[in-house]
Amino acid sequence: MANLQVTLVQIDNYGPWTVTPHPRREADLQTLQSRLFADLSQLFGEPGGYAFFARFDNMIAVSNGLDLAAHARIQESIRNRYPVTLSLSVASAPTAAEALSTATRQLQDAGSAQDPGRTEILRGEPIPEADRRNDDVQIAHFDVNDATGRYTDELHAFETFIHIEAGYLELMRHLHGDHDALSFFVGGDNVIAVGGGLDRAALEATIEHVEAAAGVDLKVGVGHGRTAEAAGSAAKHALEACRQNGTRVEGELPPVDAD
Amino acid sequence: MANLQVTLVQIDNYGPWTVTPHPRREADLQTLQSRLFADLSQLFGEPGGYAFFARFDNMIAVSNGLDLAAHARIQESIRNRYPVTLSLSVASAPTAAEALSTATRQLQDAGSAQDPGRTEILRGEPIPEADRRNDDVQIAHFDVNDATGRYTDELHAFETFIHIEAGYLELMRHLHGDHDALSFFVGGDNVIAVGGGLDRAALEATIEHVEAAAGVDLKVGVGHGRTAEAAGSAAKHALEACRQNGTRVEGELPPVDAD
Amino acid sequence: MANLQVTLVQIDNYGPWTVTPHPRREADLQTLQSRLFADLSQLFGEPGGYAFFARFDNMIAVSNGLDLAAHARIQESIRNRYPVTLSLSVASAPTAAEALSTATRQLQDAGSAQDPGRTEILRGEPIPEADRRNDDVQIAHFDVNDATGRYTDELHAFETFIHIEAGYLELMRHLHGDHDALSFFVGGDNVIAVGGGLDRAALEATIEHVEAAAGVDLKVGVGHGRTAEAAGSAAKHALEACRQNGTRVEGELPPVDAD
Amino acid sequence: MANLQVTLVQIDNYGPWTVTPHPRREADLQTLQSRLFADLSQLFGEPGGYAFFARFDNMIAVSNGLDLAAHARIQESIRNRYPVTLSLSVASAPTAAEALSTATRQLQDAGSAQDPGRTEILRGEPIPEADRRNDDVQIAHFDVNDATGRYTDELHAFETFIHIEAGYLELMRHLHGDHDALSFFVGGDNVIAVGGGLDRAALEATIEHVEAAAGVDLKVGVGHGRTAEAAGSAAKHALEACRQNGTRVEGELPPVDAD
Repeated sequence: MANLQVTLVQIDNYGPWTVTPHPRREADLQTLQSRLFADLSQLFGEPGGYAFFARFDNMIAVSNGLDLAAHARIQESIRNRYPVTLSLSVASAPTAAEALSTATRQLQDAGSAQDPGRTEILRGEPIPEADRRNDDVQIAHFDVNDATGRYTDELHAFETFIHIEAGYLELMRHLHGDHDALSFFVGGDNVIAVGGGLDRAALEATIEHVEAAAGVDLKVGVGHGRTAEAAGSAAKHALEACRQNGTRVEGELPPVDAD
Repeated sequence: MANLQVTLVQIDNYGPWTVTPHPRREADLQTLQSRLFADLSQLFGEPGGYAFFARFDNMIAVSNGLDLAAHARIQESIRNRYPVTLSLSVASAPTAAEALSTATRQLQDAGSAQDPGRTEILRGEPIPEADRRNDDVQIAHFDVNDATGRYTDELHAFETFIHIEAGYLELMRHLHGDHDALSFFVGGDNVIAVGGGLDRAALEATIEHVEAAAGVDLKVGVGHGRTAEAAGSAAKHALEACRQNGTRVEGELPPVDAD
Repeated sequence: MANLQVTLVQIDNYGPWTVTPHPRREADLQTLQSRLFADLSQLFGEPGGYAFFARFDNMIAVSNGLDLAAHARIQESIRNRYPVTLSLSVASAPTAAEALSTATRQLQDAGSAQDPGRTEILRGEPIPEADRRNDDVQIAHFDVNDATGRYTDELHAFETFIHIEAGYLELMRHLHGDHDALSFFVGGDNVIAVGGGLDRAALEATIEHVEAAAGVDLKVGVGHGRTAEAAGSAAKHALEACRQNGTRVEGELPPVDAD
Repeated sequence: MANLQVTLVQIDNYGPWTVTPHPRREADLQTLQSRLFADLSQLFGEPGGYAFFARFDNMIAVSNGLDLAAHARIQESIRNRYPVTLSLSVASAPTAAEALSTATRQLQDAGSAQDPGRTEILRGEPIPEADRRNDDVQIAHFDVNDATGRYTDELHAFETFIHIEAGYLELMRHLHGDHDALSFFVGGDNVIAVGGGLDRAALEATIEHVEAAAGVDLKVGVGHGRTAEAAGSAAKHALEACRQNGTRVEGELPPVDAD
């Protein structure tokens, strides 16, 4: 059984900051947000985590392998280099959605995201080192079959973009609703889903759902690991296997329940 | 009548690069992509443009005010500092979608996005300086009413995220389909739409559509300007006026056709 | 006669900030400083300026081509993205040292660099556009003859570093004392000097002085231009000519006074 | 007895790259170099190391705590995000200079810094984990007494800069020649020396030498630790003690030999 450790990352009181004393220049906000995320991708990434930009003011990381001291260090590093601060809430559960649910509640209990007095909260309990296992994290890495040939090189760039977004919305909803997995668009035609017990049947059903609902044709590689990095790297190699074999699902998959 | 200049920014042969000779570490790709976008936001932003990350490998900029030399300089700056190169295609039209359509076609005519021999394309015709006017760009800046109170502080972070994404998809589709406008999620609960002739009726209809289709309650500030920056800054101030006045639409709006 | 526009860039009250409430982590300060400089290099560089890191808390830019609005925009961009703010003081004169002298005095008149109440000063007078000429800026780009072969590949890395630093100190002192030029180490074995009226005799005497005093064997390319970028690019090409021709001084040089 | 682990970081074939096919824009090179260093400061810094920019194309890190896998990971991270690659050579010894000497020789043995075929070398032996001790690293953090009051607020900015550079050169030479320590300017009026057996007498003699030779009046805080970060943090606190107590040398100091 998987054991996902998830960290909710929230920029403290960010909305009000962006318009105080008057609206800040959009080019600067975009630069600030994307560089902050880039740094979090490295800071969570060095010890093996994955950070996702999500809404940029609320980011989500798979943080198996980072203890509270590592989280506090990330807060310090950002405080020392940015005009904003971060609150972090960490939790673990057999599925990513359950873990994020606990992490969300912990942060909400500490006060509103726009309460100027609620800054640099650090809450929650990382998985004790002794309890970590080599298959704690499951990652499913999706991409669109021949996105360049069918979309980028053929359609108006914005139509392609709408297709990709529509496919992503169907995917994120389906995997969240049916499997308590969290899916994140990571650029291009790629979506990374952080799951718990996704098996072959679930993945095939997901691909069929997205094809039917949004007309987007996906394939997926699946990997498991002690960290997001280990699981994600295995998933990427499995996705390459799909490409070579012309298959839709590859990777280390739990046996389908025979019932 | 508006005159939108749009630049399609494409990372050359990016997909193959990310998996050659084997899949590159996701944390590094995320850092690369988001920093590249951050730099483009500054490079297009200094002369008054807006860059949007879109799919990250295909970005879109509103580039009124940047001539071909400025575009060539952006290519050079990225080539000098990143392991990847950019192709740029620029076009203008009364609506953002028409301009992007031309820009897309120009780039497709130069070869496939995954053709290793097609690098650093620079095509298209910026608006001649003499033809530029103070209302060439129209920007509509949307946000969600009380997103923090209703969503961030109340819902599971991923449910909030799905709501925002669903609202964005409805908005981008509606404005593209009905008004040839291009809409971009820019973080938090904010979407920036680049339009041509959006009037009050169109904006109210859009807000009603998104409310009906996705249950997301929006407001919008509108601005016009010689550059995206000028138009966007006016739109942000108009959005603040919505907040203060409790209104749904504010800003410089073309008169509704009385017919 | 040259007309150098120089901007003194000072991080406001930086020293105290680095130790408040207790000393901040050095790795973070180094990252902050070098990224701030990197951004200034782009912000001054886009319109053709050169920024030098100097002491990092006090940086110096050759800013021909940037008016006060451009300077204010740089202050805004940094304020929006960093935890610190900048004061800027701009002045012009026939030599870089004179210009910097005026710029320094203007900033000192506004208060101490460690006065917490003295923030975001913007003082001085850029060169009016009508007075700018195509040879306002003179750049001399020095490097060490065969630094890799003689030093990097032969000596202990720190001995090489001491050689380079010693050569730089002699160069900066000599050019400042005798020619009111400002010299900046820019990495590797490269020093860029911003001058006014450096001629062949002055440059040859400088090279001889550094050879005699520090045992470091230099060559130099010289260029002039309307901006630092134009002058510096010409200087770099002249330095390549030295490399090809085995000469010590190349470039556009004022005639030696025949007296 | 100290045990310093030092890593020599060399950008592969960098000089030729900066002028191929023609000299690259200086503003971009400065941005590239300083961002690359900023990233190394974080990459070495997260596990407790200190990176110094030195000549930027040849950087030096105190890397106690980083094994070869961590070094390989740094190479990978840079290769994935920059247009250049890094060679790394690691060695350890009771003094920083001895360690760097070995590291330099290892890299030179692998080929010239400008040999296009010599890329991404990784050589040397980190200290085995079992041999690491809590006082392996000694850091001495120097700054100039009242630099702001005496220099920045009083002198021409370039005269201040020359003073600081001259003081630094005397310090780096003296500590290297007499004590096999490596000293690095880190911005403002700060120099960090990485030593082995610096005691009170050595530090007082150093301060007197720099005062006599360059007229620069220093104070110093000293710390020891298992990592550069631990030692450096203690040194910073000791420097604050100097400031409060009006003393010149503070910190954990080895007893002076009584002879």
